[in-house]
Amino acid sequence: MANGKKIKQIIIKILKRNGLTSKHALICSNALLNAEFVGAHSHGLSRLKMYCDRIQRKVINPKPRIKIKKISQSIFLIDANNSIGFVAADVAIKQAIKSAKKTGIALVGVKNSGHYGLSGFYAEQAVKKNLTVLCFTNAPPAIAPHGAKKILFGTNPICFGTPTSSKVPFILDTSVSLINRGKIRVAAKTGNKIPKGVALDKDGYPTTNAKKALSGIQLPIAGFRGSGLAWMVDILSGVITGSNHGGKVKDPFDDFTGPQNVGHLFFVMKSNLFTKNYNKQIKENIRRIKTLPKLKGVKKILYPGENKYLRYKKNISKKIKVSKIIERDLKILLN
Amino acid sequence: MANGKKIKQIIIKILKRNGLTSKHALICSNALLNAEFVGAHSHGLSRLKMYCDRIQRKVINPKPRIKIKKISQSIFLIDANNSIGFVAADVAIKQAIKSAKKTGIALVGVKNSGHYGLSGFYAEQAVKKNLTVLCFTNAPPAIAPHGAKKILFGTNPICFGTPTSSKVPFILDTSVSLINRGKIRVAAKTGNKIPKGVALDKDGYPTTNAKKALSGIQLPIAGFRGSGLAWMVDILSGVITGSNHGGKVKDPFDDFTGPQNVGHLFFVMKSNLFTKNYNKQIKENIRRIKTLPKLKGVKKILYPGENKYLRYKKNISKKIKVSKIIERDLKILLN
Repeated sequence: MANGKKIKQIIIKILKRNGLTSKHALICSNALLNAEFVGAHSHGLSRLKMYCDRIQRKVINPKPRIKIKKISQSIFLIDANNSIGFVAADVAIKQAIKSAKKTGIALVGVKNSGHYGLSGFYAEQAVKKNLTVLCFTNAPPAIAPHGAKKILFGTNPICFGTPTSSKVPFILDTSVSLINRGKIRVAAKTGNKIPKGVALDKDGYPTTNAKKALSGIQLPIAGFRGSGLAWMVDILSGVITGSNHGGKVKDPFDDFTGPQNVGHLFFVMKSNLFTKNYNKQIKENIRRIKTLPKLKGVKKILYPGENKYLRYKKNISKKIKVSKIIERDLKILLN
Repeated sequence: MANGKKIKQIIIKILKRNGLTSKHALICSNALLNAEFVGAHSHGLSRLKMYCDRIQRKVINPKPRIKIKKISQSIFLIDANNSIGFVAADVAIKQAIKSAKKTGIALVGVKNSGHYGLSGFYAEQAVKKNLTVLCFTNAPPAIAPHGAKKILFGTNPICFGTPTSSKVPFILDTSVSLINRGKIRVAAKTGNKIPKGVALDKDGYPTTNAKKALSGIQLPIAGFRGSGLAWMVDILSGVITGSNHGGKVKDPFDDFTGPQNVGHLFFVMKSNLFTKNYNKQIKENIRRIKTLPKLKGVKKILYPGENKYLRYKKNISKKIKVSKIIERDLKILLN
C-alpha cells in the first residue's frame, strides 16, 4: 500500500538501477502507473520484475539506440533496438502525432520492440491532441487459429481512439481473445479461477484453472471472425513492420532465448480532416446512443473508455493496493 | 437460370433503362455478379429491384456529379452526390490505389453514398495491385448498442485485405453482427429460418423467424466488444466523413424519405512500405498457420478469403441460379 507518487519513485529507482536513463524510466513508470489507475493490474506492477529480468538476461536493451527512418512526411519506421516496449511506443506515438498534425495523416511502424502495455495509453495521447487513432500490436501465442489445436496468435488488441468533445475520450481497446492473457496470469499468481468458456486446457477440454489455461488455448471472440481479426493484427503489426509474426513473438515471462521483436503499427489522423464540425457530430452521435431505451438493469449506456476513465479518476488519489507477491517482487528489485 | 454473361447484359440493360450511363451500369453489374459468384446472394441480384426502386423514387441519383476533393497527395474526400454506392466506392478505391502507389499511403473518405455491396470486392482491387487495404462502411440500423434495447448500429463490416504471394488474396470481410442482415432478408423472402442465438424479436426474445428478426434486434459478436467495434466503424465511416451516422443511415429497402447518405473510408498502403521481403514473410506467416495441428474434423486451415475464392472459381463458369422471386423482379424490371 503506497500512494502513486511513492510507487512512481520506486519504479524509477528500480528501472534506473537496471540501466535505463531517467527519461526512459519515467516513460515506463507513467505507463505502469496508468495501468494500475485504470484497473488493468495485469499490465501494471505485476510486470515490473519481468521487465527487469529480461534486462538482466540481456533480451531487453536498457540503453537502446532507437532509429527513426523517415519514409515520407507522413510515414516513419522505427527500429526500437530491443528497447522496453513502452519507450519505443512513446517515441512512435509522439512521431505519429507530430506528423499527423502537419500532414493530416501519419503511419508509424515499429520493429524490434517489446510488450508496450496498454494500447489505450498511446491512443489517449493522440486523442488529447484532437486526433483520431488506430493502434495495433502483436503478442506472444495465446489463441489458436480457427481450426487449429495449437495456440499461435497473440491476444492482438484492436485499439481505436477519437475525441468526444468532452474530457472523456472514446478509447476502444479490445483484445480479440475472450479474456485478457494478463488477467489469466494474475489469476495464476493469486490462485483464482478464470471464467467458464474462455479457455481450453492443452488437450482441448474447457478449464477454469488459470495455470492450465496458460499452458492451453485461449479462445478468440466470435470463432472464425475473431481468429481472422487476430490474423489481421498479426499481419499489420508483425509482417508489415518486419517484426516477428506467425507465433514467433517470444513470451516475455517464459522465453529468455532472445528479444521479443514485437511489432506495433500506429495510424493517426486529424479528426476534422473531412468535416469542419467533427466535434459537434461526435457529440450528437454519442448523445443519440446514450439516450436509447435501455435493457432491464442497465442504468447508463457507456461508450468505450468511459469506465476506464471513471476508474482512473477514482483511483488517482487513492493508495495503490499491492499484492504480497508484488510486494515481494519490489523488495527483491530494490535490494 | 442463366449464365453470367447473359445476366450481366440483363443487369446493364435494366440499370441503363433506369438512367445510369453504360460505364456506371457496368461497374454495378460487375459488383452484383461478383457477389453471386462468391455466394453472397444477399448482396447480388436480390438487391437489384431495390436499387431501381430507389432511383425511381429519386433517392438514388442515376446521373451523379461525383466530386473528388484533394486534401493532399494522400488524402481525398469524395462527395458521391447520392450515387448508387457501387459507383462511389469504385471511384474511391481507384483513387486510393493510385495515390498509395504514388505516396505509399492513401486515405479516401466518401460521403453522400449508398450501400456499396461487399467491402471485399473493393479490397480485392487494391490487393491485386500488391497493396494492403482497410475498408469501412456504415449501414442502416441492425444491431443494438451494448445495454440498449433498440437497434442503432449497422452490421458495419471491418474489411482487411493483403497480398499473399499466391493468386488467392487474404480478404477478411466480417460484419460485427452474428449474422449478415442480407442473409436474414433472403431468409425472409424465401421463408427460411435463421440460426438460433443470432437475433431477438422486437420485445427482446430470441427468435429464428427471419421477419421477426428484421423488425427486432440482431446481436453483435462478443457483446460489448462487438458493440464497440460497430461504434468504431460508425465513427470512422460516418462521423469522420461527414455522412449520416448514429442510426440515421436509411434502410434502403424500407425508407424512401431521402438518400441513405452512407459513408465509406478506405485506407490503402504499399505492402512493402517498411520491409523489402513482405511477400516472403506473408508466405511464411501463412505456411506456419496452415501447418499447425488441426482440430478433429478439420481438413485444412483456411485464411480469410480462401473459401470465397474457391466458391468464385467454382461458380464463374456455372449458370447462376435465380429464385422465383428474383426472376419475377427481373421480369418486372425488364418490362
